[in-house]
Amino acid sequence: MRISFLFFLFLLTGTLSAQTPEENLEALGIELPDAATPVANYVNAVRVGNLLFLAGKGPAMAPGKYVTGKLGRDLAVEAGYEAARWVGINQLAVLKAELGDLSRVKRIVKVLGMVNAIPEFTDHSKVMNGYSDLMVEVFGEKGKHARSSVGMSSLPMNIAVEVEMIVEIED
Amino acid sequence: MRISFLFFLFLLTGTLSAQTPEENLEALGIELPDAATPVANYVNAVRVGNLLFLAGKGPAMAPGKYVTGKLGRDLAVEAGYEAARWVGINQLAVLKAELGDLSRVKRIVKVLGMVNAIPEFTDHSKVMNGYSDLMVEVFGEKGKHARSSVGMSSLPMNIAVEVEMIVEIED
Amino acid sequence: MRISFLFFLFLLTGTLSAQTPEENLEALGIELPDAATPVANYVNAVRVGNLLFLAGKGPAMAPGKYVTGKLGRDLAVEAGYEAARWVGINQLAVLKAELGDLSRVKRIVKVLGMVNAIPEFTDHSKVMNGYSDLMVEVFGEKGKHARSSVGMSSLPMNIAVEVEMIVEIED
Repeated sequence: MRISFLFFLFLLTGTLSAQTPEENLEALGIELPDAATPVANYVNAVRVGNLLFLAGKGPAMAPGKYVTGKLGRDLAVEAGYEAARWVGINQLAVLKAELGDLSRVKRIVKVLGMVNAIPEFTDHSKVMNGYSDLMVEVFGEKGKHARSSVGMSSLPMNIAVEVEMIVEIED
Repeated sequence: MRISFLFFLFLLTGTLSAQTPEENLEALGIELPDAATPVANYVNAVRVGNLLFLAGKGPAMAPGKYVTGKLGRDLAVEAGYEAARWVGINQLAVLKAELGDLSRVKRIVKVLGMVNAIPEFTDHSKVMNGYSDLMVEVFGEKGKHARSSVGMSSLPMNIAVEVEMIVEIED
Repeated sequence: MRISFLFFLFLLTGTLSAQTPEENLEALGIELPDAATPVANYVNAVRVGNLLFLAGKGPAMAPGKYVTGKLGRDLAVEAGYEAARWVGINQLAVLKAELGDLSRVKRIVKVLGMVNAIPEFTDHSKVMNGYSDLMVEVFGEKGKHARSSVGMSSLPMNIAVEVEMIVEIED
């Protein structure tokens, strides 16, 4: 009985990891937006060799419509988690636009999570889990990254979270 | 008439892109200072393969003379733009010292722009354009980078802006 | 007399640089702790080619026991220096766990030092010297890195300092 349950889990895991990132997104009910183009003299991503450096993005829920406010005052931790997840969706949109196929992601390497917060805030990690959890839901083990979570006194347009990241691409 | 105008623009663009970064600097009236050496146990830049990682620099207008103050209180956005441009000039001085010839820059890859600001400030992007615009004026398309712009509650010596960056070098 | 003194210094330097990082740590009386495993969906380090990207770490003096507080209010610069040194010890523990042998470190490449501070604080560099000095004491010239030191309005669990870094590994 117990062995068959573990075997079932094993099969399930195998099935999940065999899914493409795009299939995982569909299973999560996430439709990627178009990647917003920066309005200034910079770009969404620059590739050097097999490393892709992504510009900082915010929690756009729709074009130009952001989650705003400071953690610890305007937003509860749960709302911050959702905001960080929105940032993740926007970075996945950039990856999709750059790579065409998310299966070309070999590894999410490094994430710098910058949380708009009051000086007394201490739950940055719980907020940034919204971003990290999404990466692992979409890419599985390849989504596990090195991460820093820190508190900013201010962010552009008062967005709640900004995240930049480095991604390794398949040759 | 219209075609000849576009052709003129094409010629002009060709001429501009054919200029070296040093010639662009001269046309802009910018004379690079000597790269200031860090006083502590660190260095201005470390190269790994074709990537050059530059330490954070501030807006030095002359040796030891910095633009200081917080955006949103002590400095207007325009003054912040100028401060970010000064940081750019100091990073170009580091690049020149490291590479000898700025034509060896293959791509400005990644810029992290950290703006000293009060909690209510929201125009970090406009400030950081002072840095990004300079990179594109000097390097053209090679100067277009991935960027994050964020707000710090404090910076060393109360400097207005600090920027670190990653640059790809020609083999 | 003077020449023999310089020669003695030369010999001494040669001897020091011939020591392994582990021997340097022992001479400093530092025993590395076990590398703490992140509790969320991320990891301590990701390697791409010969680059190792380390997640942000805090000043743990013992498992779960951190130096906390803001520079400029709760902690003096000297206490901040010690906190930054503790972060360094924890990052060395991560390196040891990842590499087995610290002699595999070819270069400490890039350090981002984020200091929990009040808006009026200006001595971030002196705080971060606690981290940089340790890297040079352990790795010698290989420990000299590009660095940014900046001020955060808040950090997870109110830790005093958080540092992330990039390390080049021997092939």
